[in-house]
Amino acid sequence: MNIDKYPSRLLENAVNEFSKLPGIGRKSALRLVLHLLRQNPEQVEAFGHSLIQLRKEIKHCKVCHNISDSDICQICSNPAKNNSVVCVVENIRDVMSIENTQQYNGLYHVLGGIISPMDGIGPSDLEIESLVKRVEKGEIVEVILALSTTMEGDTTNFYIFRKLKDFEVKLTTLARGVSIGDELEYTDEITLGRSLLHRVPYESSVGR
Amino acid sequence: MNIDKYPSRLLENAVNEFSKLPGIGRKSALRLVLHLLRQNPEQVEAFGHSLIQLRKEIKHCKVCHNISDSDICQICSNPAKNNSVVCVVENIRDVMSIENTQQYNGLYHVLGGIISPMDGIGPSDLEIESLVKRVEKGEIVEVILALSTTMEGDTTNFYIFRKLKDFEVKLTTLARGVSIGDELEYTDEITLGRSLLHRVPYESSVGR
Repeated sequence: MNIDKYPSRLLENAVNEFSKLPGIGRKSALRLVLHLLRQNPEQVEAFGHSLIQLRKEIKHCKVCHNISDSDICQICSNPAKNNSVVCVVENIRDVMSIENTQQYNGLYHVLGGIISPMDGIGPSDLEIESLVKRVEKGEIVEVILALSTTMEGDTTNFYIFRKLKDFEVKLTTLARGVSIGDELEYTDEITLGRSLLHRVPYESSVGR
Repeated sequence: MNIDKYPSRLLENAVNEFSKLPGIGRKSALRLVLHLLRQNPEQVEAFGHSLIQLRKEIKHCKVCHNISDSDICQICSNPAKNNSVVCVVENIRDVMSIENTQQYNGLYHVLGGIISPMDGIGPSDLEIESLVKRVEKGEIVEVILALSTTMEGDTTNFYIFRKLKDFEVKLTTLARGVSIGDELEYTDEITLGRSLLHRVPYESSVGR
């Protein structure tokens, strides 16, 4: 498959490692490696060590399972956060996306995936039991289900709903509708239909 | 510019390092880092070490200045190569490209760049003196100039020509012409003109 001859085994090693990354082929890998060769050794060493350290030392928050440097993450340990609301997300990128909106002041619960029988991921592979335990403590008033609107997301939502429905906790999901800036004629009918169904009072839409 | 909040300093470090690479933005960097977090620690350690080792231990061939694991590179030390022909190239990627054609059996001389006053690169920044020294020894019969056909490439070619013209050595350049598979009507006129000017006997074009 690959007949490229590298002038050096060290170079070939580095190219092999880079091309294992998603979306990086052997040509891009070579370009990146040659770029690193032009940097000074300290910089490349810092790069290498940052990766090794990352994988070795990173922790997951014992409460919300977000990535963290300590046992309890920055969000869970922040006293300014509203700890009566928990937003259930699939992965840490979703946490970052929601944090970046600066519109949410509650806590999170990172499932680590969604139920997907095709990929062999069942409820026990996800952090669902620990979510139930958090709710059991009785301090949580609202659980926001913020999973993607795929079949797998819906299944996971329903599974969590069944697990939590007997607790005294409000279950909500994200509003779905036409994206801000989108034109109606290019919006798919399911989204547009949902937008109509869940229409909001005009005053609340211009509030912020 | 960047208001992303990362849940971990280790994660942020790794993203920072990745996004220093050319063509990798912060979003791609995060995707790559999260991919590494899903690998087992040994794999990530191998990746990190391959980079550190590369930068620390890589050498440049003392003869042709190609990248090498030892003082003399695989090509220069290969007795099967024709050491009376030297192909002058800009960088090691050009060496690899030419090696991959499997049409050349001579040696190389890697300049490490081309003369480019705009970027502050003069003849003394390049491995031109060492090329002259190689030719001086009298074993080299032909020097092939394989630099790019830009103004900088032409300048460098001319500079090398002036340095070598008094030696008994044949100076050649790559043939320029219509790419194989290209249609004439889409070929630029300079290339097409050159193809006509340097036309070759029909028999030699079907030879191999």
